[in-house]
Amino acid sequence: MPNIGIVGAGIAGLQLGLKLRQHDVPVTIYTDKTAAQLASGRLLNSVAHHGPTIQRERELDVHFWPVEEYGYSCHHHYVGGPSPLSFRGDFARWSSAIDYRLYLPRLTKAFEERGGTLEVRMLQAEDIEPIADRHDLLVVAAGRGAFSALFPRRPEYSPYDKPQRVLSVGFYNGITYSEPKGVTISVSPGHGELLEIPMYSAAGFTTALLFENVPGGELEILGRKSYDEDPAGYERLVLDLLAKHHPQTFERVDPASFGLTGPLDILQGALTPTVRQDYAALPNGKYALAIGDVHTVVDPVVGQGANSASHSAWVTGEEILADYALDEEFCKRVAARRADVVLGAAQWTNFMLTPPPEHLLQLFGAMSQDQAVANEFTDNFDYPDRQWRILATPERTREFLARHAKS
Amino acid sequence: MPNIGIVGAGIAGLQLGLKLRQHDVPVTIYTDKTAAQLASGRLLNSVAHHGPTIQRERELDVHFWPVEEYGYSCHHHYVGGPSPLSFRGDFARWSSAIDYRLYLPRLTKAFEERGGTLEVRMLQAEDIEPIADRHDLLVVAAGRGAFSALFPRRPEYSPYDKPQRVLSVGFYNGITYSEPKGVTISVSPGHGELLEIPMYSAAGFTTALLFENVPGGELEILGRKSYDEDPAGYERLVLDLLAKHHPQTFERVDPASFGLTGPLDILQGALTPTVRQDYAALPNGKYALAIGDVHTVVDPVVGQGANSASHSAWVTGEEILADYALDEEFCKRVAARRADVVLGAAQWTNFMLTPPPEHLLQLFGAMSQDQAVANEFTDNFDYPDRQWRILATPERTREFLARHAKS
Repeated sequence: MPNIGIVGAGIAGLQLGLKLRQHDVPVTIYTDKTAAQLASGRLLNSVAHHGPTIQRERELDVHFWPVEEYGYSCHHHYVGGPSPLSFRGDFARWSSAIDYRLYLPRLTKAFEERGGTLEVRMLQAEDIEPIADRHDLLVVAAGRGAFSALFPRRPEYSPYDKPQRVLSVGFYNGITYSEPKGVTISVSPGHGELLEIPMYSAAGFTTALLFENVPGGELEILGRKSYDEDPAGYERLVLDLLAKHHPQTFERVDPASFGLTGPLDILQGALTPTVRQDYAALPNGKYALAIGDVHTVVDPVVGQGANSASHSAWVTGEEILADYALDEEFCKRVAARRADVVLGAAQWTNFMLTPPPEHLLQLFGAMSQDQAVANEFTDNFDYPDRQWRILATPERTREFLARHAKS
Repeated sequence: MPNIGIVGAGIAGLQLGLKLRQHDVPVTIYTDKTAAQLASGRLLNSVAHHGPTIQRERELDVHFWPVEEYGYSCHHHYVGGPSPLSFRGDFARWSSAIDYRLYLPRLTKAFEERGGTLEVRMLQAEDIEPIADRHDLLVVAAGRGAFSALFPRRPEYSPYDKPQRVLSVGFYNGITYSEPKGVTISVSPGHGELLEIPMYSAAGFTTALLFENVPGGELEILGRKSYDEDPAGYERLVLDLLAKHHPQTFERVDPASFGLTGPLDILQGALTPTVRQDYAALPNGKYALAIGDVHTVVDPVVGQGANSASHSAWVTGEEILADYALDEEFCKRVAARRADVVLGAAQWTNFMLTPPPEHLLQLFGAMSQDQAVANEFTDNFDYPDRQWRILATPERTREFLARHAKS
C-alpha cells in the first residue's frame, strides 16, 4: 500500500485524500491553515460545482448540501450592447455553489474522521526533500507556496503574461434570485462580465457578485478601490455600475437592503491564467504530481477551476489505486487521462477572455434563438472538453450550429 | 457530412471505412491490389484477433467467422533452457486467427456492398495533393508506399534502427492442435520465439508457425534460406529446428504428413519496429492522420499489430463521427485517445524483443506456479496498456506479483 503526501487542503487535495481513504491508503495532507481559520476568515472564492463534481461528491460520501435543495438549474445570459440579448440555458444536472468556508472545513473533518492525517504547517522549499522522503508520491495541490516552483510554466498553453480581468467578488444582501434559480452571466462589452451566483454560506442563502472587469474598462475600479476604507461608498459604486453595465441583475436589486453580508465577505485581486507541467522528478528519485491550481490556474469567468481540480484529483486517485508504481510512467498516465478535461477547461476559459470573436457572437445569437443550442452550451459547463470542441475555431462553431439548424 | 479518403485496405482502413459507412459517411479507400489478387496471393501474415477486435467486428457486423467456432481459448507457454517451464494462460474472451487472404477480401466486399468506394491504383508522392483535395481528411492506413513519408519517425518510441527478429511464417499440415485449442508461445533462449497458431484458411483449419528468430542465433536461417529453391530441404530444416528448439510443438508433429500447405503459404522477412508521428499537415491546409502500420510497426512477437490498428481505426471513426472539424485539434484528440493502447502495445512488444531481464523471468516463473497470474498476463494480450503497466519496470512487476501473492 503506497503512502501518499498531499500538499494543500483545497478541493483537489481533500477530494483526493477522501478517495484514497475510501480504499484505506495512508494519506497525509499538509496545509498552512486550520479548518477553523478558514471558516472564520475572508471569503475564498465564489465557486460553483457542476454535475460531474457533485457526482464525485456523492461517490466520496461528502455531498453534504444536497443539490436539489441548495443548487440551481440554469444559466441566465445577458449580453449588453446596442441590441442586448437575453436568454436562458438549462443544465441536464443541477449545479450548486457552497461557500468554501463551509465546504472545505466540512471535507477536512470528514478526511480526518476517515483516518486521514492533517498536518498544519507552513512549508518552505527546504521541506520538499524531507516531506518527499516520508511518502511514495507527493501530490502538490496548492496553487501558491514553495512547492509550486517545481512545475515550470508551459508556454504553449499559457498565452497570457498578466491578468486579463481585475476581480471583485462579494456576498450581497438585497438581491432577489432569478427565476428559475440560476447563475446570471452578464456581459458588458468592453468592460467585462458579471457572474451573479445563488450561494449558500454560513448565514444562509445569499448572492455572490463576481465582477470580471477588463483592465482599462469602467468597472476595473471595483477590483482596485478599497472596500474597507469606505464600505458605504464601495457599495454605492457597485449599485451604480450594476445599473449601467449589468441591468438584468440590477433590476432584481432592492437598493434599500443592498449591501455586503459582512466585512470579510469580499475578495479583490487578479490572477494570470497559467498551465504548468504535470509532474516533476524529486531529488530522491520519487515524483511530485501537480493537480488543481498549481497545474492549471484558470480565470473564474466560466467557473471551471474547482471542477477541473476535482476531475484531476479523481483521475489521480483512480490511477494511484490501479497502478503498480508511482513513477514517471504513472505521472504520464495521469497527465494523459486528464488532459482533455483539464486542458479543455484552460483553453476554453482563455478563449472567453479575449475580445469576443465573430463566431462566439454568432453562437450567442443562436443561443438566444434556439433553446437546444443554449442548453447544450450550458450543459457543456460540465464538459469543458466538449465545449472546446465547439469553440476552438470558427469552422467548428459554424458546423456545430449547422447541425443544430438541421435537427 | 465530411468526405473521408483512406489510403490502404488492411484491417485499419477497412474497419474504419466500415464504421463510417454505418453512419453514411462518404468514404473512398485507395489500395494497390484487388481483393482477388490478395485472395490468390502469397501469405500476408499470421494475425490473431483478440477480444476487443472481435467485439469491434461484431459491432461492425463483419464477424463472419464466429469465434466460438473458429477461435481458441488460451496460450500455452513453453520456456526452454536448463529448467524448462511449461504453463497455460486462459483468455476471458476467446481469440481467433483467420487467414487475411480470406479476411480482407470479405471485409472489402462488405465495404463496397455498404456503399463504400474502392479505388485500386498505385499511389505516388505526386498523388498526395490531388487526393487530399478530394477529401476533408486523409487517413493513411498503409504501412508502405509514398504516403508513409508524411509521418516522421518518433525516436523516443523507436529504440531500434534495425530488425530484432528474422521472421519466417508458414502454414503447415501435420500438426495436431494443442489441447485446449490455443496459441503456443515457445521461447528458445538466445535463439528466439515460435508462435504456433491455430489458423483458419481457404483450405480449412491449419497451423501457422511463426518463427521469430534472433539474428545470429541457430534459427535465423529459417528467415534467410529460400523455400522455393528447395521446398523439401526447407521443411526438413524446420522439423530439425523444431525438435531442438521448440519441443512442445514438435511433439505434436506427425513428420510423415508435415509440410507447407502450399507454395505461397510462406512469408519470410524482417521489420524494424517504428513509431511515427500521429498526423501531418497537408499543403492544402487539410490533415493526414496515420493509423495502423504507418503509425506503429510492431514486431509480431506478441500479436499486437492488427489489434492495435483496429483500435486506432475505431477511435478515429468515433472521433470523426463526434467532432465538428477534421483539423489539427481533431488529430490531437485521436492521438491522445489511442495513445495508451497503441503506445502500450509498441512499448510492450519492444520490451519482449530485448534479452529477457530478470523481472520478466520472475514473471514467467510466477505464471508457471500461479494460474491467476498466467491468466492475467494472457488476458492482457487484449489490453496492452495494462500489460505495459506491469512490465515497464522491475518494481512494477514485483508489485504486481506481490499483490497476486497476497490475494
